Amino acid sequence: MPSKHQSNVATVSKNNTKAVCDSLWKLMADHGVDAYWVPSSDEHLNEYLPEAHKRREFLTGFTGSAGDALVFSEALTTLLKNLPVRLFVDSRYYEQADFEVDLETVHVSRQGLEGHPRLIDTLLALAKQKPGLKLGFDPFTVSAQAIQDLQKQCKSANIELVPLGENLIDRLWRENKKNPRPEAALNPVYSLPIDYSGRSTEDKINRLQTQLKDSRCEATVLTKLDQIAWLLNLRGQDIPYNPVFLSYVITTTNDVYFFCEKSRIEKSAIDSLPKSVKLLPYTDYASQLPIACKNKRVLFDPKHATSGTMSLLKQAKAIIVKEDNPVETDKAIKNAVELSWMREAHLKAATGKIRAFHWLEKTLQDKPESLNEKSFADQLEVFYSKEQDFKGLSFNTIAGFGPNSSIVHYGTPSETVKLKSGGLFLVDSGTQYLGGTTDDTRTIIIGKPDEKQIRCFTAVLKAHINCASQIFPKGTEGARLDGITRATLWQEKMDYGHGTGHGVGAFLNVHEGPCGIHRLASKPLLPGMIVSIEPGYYEPGWGGIRCENLYVVVEVSPGWYGFESLTYIPFDNRLIDFESLDSKQADWLASYQRAVVEKTGNRLEASVLAWLKENI
Amino acid sequence: MPSKHQSNVATVSKNNTKAVCDSLWKLMADHGVDAYWVPSSDEHLNEYLPEAHKRREFLTGFTGSAGDALVFSEALTTLLKNLPVRLFVDSRYYEQADFEVDLETVHVSRQGLEGHPRLIDTLLALAKQKPGLKLGFDPFTVSAQAIQDLQKQCKSANIELVPLGENLIDRLWRENKKNPRPEAALNPVYSLPIDYSGRSTEDKINRLQTQLKDSRCEATVLTKLDQIAWLLNLRGQDIPYNPVFLSYVITTTNDVYFFCEKSRIEKSAIDSLPKSVKLLPYTDYASQLPIACKNKRVLFDPKHATSGTMSLLKQAKAIIVKEDNPVETDKAIKNAVELSWMREAHLKAATGKIRAFHWLEKTLQDKPESLNEKSFADQLEVFYSKEQDFKGLSFNTIAGFGPNSSIVHYGTPSETVKLKSGGLFLVDSGTQYLGGTTDDTRTIIIGKPDEKQIRCFTAVLKAHINCASQIFPKGTEGARLDGITRATLWQEKMDYGHGTGHGVGAFLNVHEGPCGIHRLASKPLLPGMIVSIEPGYYEPGWGGIRCENLYVVVEVSPGWYGFESLTYIPFDNRLIDFESLDSKQADWLASYQRAVVEKTGNRLEASVLAWLKENI
Repeated sequence: MPSKHQSNVATVSKNNTKAVCDSLWKLMADHGVDAYWVPSSDEHLNEYLPEAHKRREFLTGFTGSAGDALVFSEALTTLLKNLPVRLFVDSRYYEQADFEVDLETVHVSRQGLEGHPRLIDTLLALAKQKPGLKLGFDPFTVSAQAIQDLQKQCKSANIELVPLGENLIDRLWRENKKNPRPEAALNPVYSLPIDYSGRSTEDKINRLQTQLKDSRCEATVLTKLDQIAWLLNLRGQDIPYNPVFLSYVITTTNDVYFFCEKSRIEKSAIDSLPKSVKLLPYTDYASQLPIACKNKRVLFDPKHATSGTMSLLKQAKAIIVKEDNPVETDKAIKNAVELSWMREAHLKAATGKIRAFHWLEKTLQDKPESLNEKSFADQLEVFYSKEQDFKGLSFNTIAGFGPNSSIVHYGTPSETVKLKSGGLFLVDSGTQYLGGTTDDTRTIIIGKPDEKQIRCFTAVLKAHINCASQIFPKGTEGARLDGITRATLWQEKMDYGHGTGHGVGAFLNVHEGPCGIHRLASKPLLPGMIVSIEPGYYEPGWGGIRCENLYVVVEVSPGWYGFESLTYIPFDNRLIDFESLDSKQADWLASYQRAVVEKTGNRLEASVLAWLKENI
Repeated sequence: MPSKHQSNVATVSKNNTKAVCDSLWKLMADHGVDAYWVPSSDEHLNEYLPEAHKRREFLTGFTGSAGDALVFSEALTTLLKNLPVRLFVDSRYYEQADFEVDLETVHVSRQGLEGHPRLIDTLLALAKQKPGLKLGFDPFTVSAQAIQDLQKQCKSANIELVPLGENLIDRLWRENKKNPRPEAALNPVYSLPIDYSGRSTEDKINRLQTQLKDSRCEATVLTKLDQIAWLLNLRGQDIPYNPVFLSYVITTTNDVYFFCEKSRIEKSAIDSLPKSVKLLPYTDYASQLPIACKNKRVLFDPKHATSGTMSLLKQAKAIIVKEDNPVETDKAIKNAVELSWMREAHLKAATGKIRAFHWLEKTLQDKPESLNEKSFADQLEVFYSKEQDFKGLSFNTIAGFGPNSSIVHYGTPSETVKLKSGGLFLVDSGTQYLGGTTDDTRTIIIGKPDEKQIRCFTAVLKAHINCASQIFPKGTEGARLDGITRATLWQEKMDYGHGTGHGVGAFLNVHEGPCGIHRLASKPLLPGMIVSIEPGYYEPGWGGIRCENLYVVVEVSPGWYGFESLTYIPFDNRLIDFESLDSKQADWLASYQRAVVEKTGNRLEASVLAWLKENI
């Protein structure tokens, strides 16, 4: 999946935005701010949010995984003669945003298009009309880095950033009787045994404490939930698709303070924690942080911790040492045990998806009228869930037929969209099995393809193969591989509006840092890191194509790296113009399709295997 | 040229480093610093330095264009049991540094190799042995950005950066009787008429003042000499190869203060300046800056202005607004007049280089024993200088034969290195003609090539063609094109240790910002920008290959860009394995070689043209 998406059941109907806005205006006036920024993220900088943290969605109805909102004060709205709410979405959500929001209250700004200003451009323009503009926000819902960058840009425009002591949306939400703020989830937290994690909690904590000493620091704060789950070898289910749980960790060179309700942690999980881990209530974080870090040199990762946390540290007179949190990279480099479970999870997911495509072809012959986006996605989940240790999907399945396939993050597969001959069907789906997280996209043709479908699919597949088969020297960053992936598409004046690839966790989040393949990916890829390769092509109204596998970075010879596939699902032969492949691309493809049969054959029913062999 | 190089006549012989070091130790003790940093650059962050600013060269004897030195105090040298001076060089200078420095006093650290720490790594390691390490430096010889980055990295290691009020090397140099510091150059400054610049000085100044207002700033400071020469449409010759002159400019929204001795500016040049330009002595800069900028909002480009300048602004209570200086981008986007002179300069340089290669082939037959690196380079300069409006070379010609071709920045062509059959000959050279700056590299074979030479040359040529023929969407940065260039080489486990390309000025510096094609090039390429494409391959002891042209970025269709070549010099057919080119590469090459004849034919003598036609 090119990136983030979440459940698109809007918490409030779109018609409430105006009412929320009216109440918000009063609070904004009390705080003396001209605009109020409602970011997409939360206290843990989560991509997928627990229900109680979906503030932007409560305000606007927009369910996408990324996209901030900006609310103008009543006076500013009048001054500007404009709608009171601005929503900033990227190319993944151009179409979805329009469906979900109240377009009479919310103006959707499509990032990347001419005449669609970004948040910062909007602020700079506002500052010209309203000198000394004051922008209010909750510092616990944005990263310290984001605030630092914004501050820099706002400085010359004389815009004042005003961190508020309360979250204005939370207050309105709590008071909202019709649609009250949900309680924070308190699902069980369980232990991930060393047979799955491959490394003891002691070892991980010791390593982190050594890294702190190496950086001459005495403490660090973890606010990202996947970092905490990884460090403590624990998992939970507070958030859809991500096996994590609400918590904080403060690590000093001697102790680990773990902020999580004891009552919700399974006994075996508590027993699994080293003695140095001190358990404290989740809600004690803000009061304990200044005590634990007082006057200490604290390693602080401004990209992965909130601005509010940094303020607390400053109040505690901590010396803030800004560095990438070492947990982020340690977590990204998978050990042999993690890799073996990732491989296993991918074979389970592959058999599920192959069975689903086989079922689709059979149903097309037997009961074509019963086939629709939703019936396919449901059937796919059935096949996924039959495999051992199934823990759910890793994101909401994207199953877009025909023109819907061009919506990069098409939300919910629809029952009314029938799969009809001649259309492209894009299925981007992923799973969580105990120990492994998967994510893949296949685009297939229903019936027979036309020339354009073949040409465009082949162009995207070539881009995929070019990246997947690329050898690169130690030190190569994702940005350069992104260029390599797009080169052949660009020659045809084709492109895609999302990154080429993202990091993937081991039984953790389907999107994780620090690795990735996109224009801003400046970190070198290292052996053991797992990334997606997922070039695409999208034409609104016509359809979309994406070819996505996950790969682990491996050393192919001293100092030279390459990719080993984790995903083994066939590419649709009917959409490939074999003539146009060069010999290296053809070899890669033939060997890949052969490997699909070899790796999944003994797991498939005879009829499915026979169908598979016939069709690749 | 992959990048910077300068005259390699060492100002002092290598044997003096120890003596300079002894004197420096006393000054360092007076200032209480444990280490003293001698950067490669100067007050104007020049790449090529005026003689009086070659401080690192005075200390170490190393003449390379990049590479900082670090001197340990006497106590620290004793404590470490190590040599007192560390010199940090990149892959271009691995070999040259060893030739030039006193290896009993200077330890050369080869950046990029295992076990060869960078400056920052060395400091961090030192800080472990000497807690609270104090690093002295002259803040007027390093950019504000470099100091900010260093400060960040040093913070956690408890290293103190100590800007000193005087340059310690300058003091020793002035006192050095044997080798006294040269006087600052005061060569004539002349006007570049609008027929060459394409834009009036008024227009450029007005635009800059508008940009300042847009950024809500009241002033900016220009310390980079090419920015000043471009803004004022003036040129000079204070620095080898760069037609610039020592000066500073402070622009406010009303006035322009131009710090340059009046006596050295030609009358017509003074007359060409708008009335708003106030002329002041060069030496008044530091005293006038605080007056001109007092309490003002100043646009300050930390990458292109010195840390010392920033300190002066802070003392003047200026509000510092950190932004890229708009002159840098304006200068990079060439107008139609500049482009026409650039094209003309490239055809002049092409005829010079073609004549030189023709001369070489003839001399190989007639008087082969007279051929050596130097005789070729001299003859090339003769041909260059015969063309109208020749203003000198744009950098010291690199003419490396055999193993010397593997030295990326091989310094001075040698009389004793004969051109013998079977060796590669790499000629990287460039010129300044009134209105245009050129830079190209051709690698040819003397006599007959072997299989490996053909294989490696063809691999590099393919990389060149792949980049040169790449179409890319608006917004594409150089980093992604760098990956695209290297992709085919990487597949053969070949690579090169320098960037793929750099920006080039119009009758200005051969290296300029902000555009470039390398891993750190994060700025989008824009139509009108000029960049080199120069992949290579180097094997010490065997030889080196580089294929370099300059290109202008052009719009090929709405939103899609490509490259138009400025350079028209043939690639050596004898080194090309035509069989291994794909059809697009073969088409590009055939059409390029044909264009060489078309564009240069009417400028060449009949015998040279006949030879050219025969050989491509």
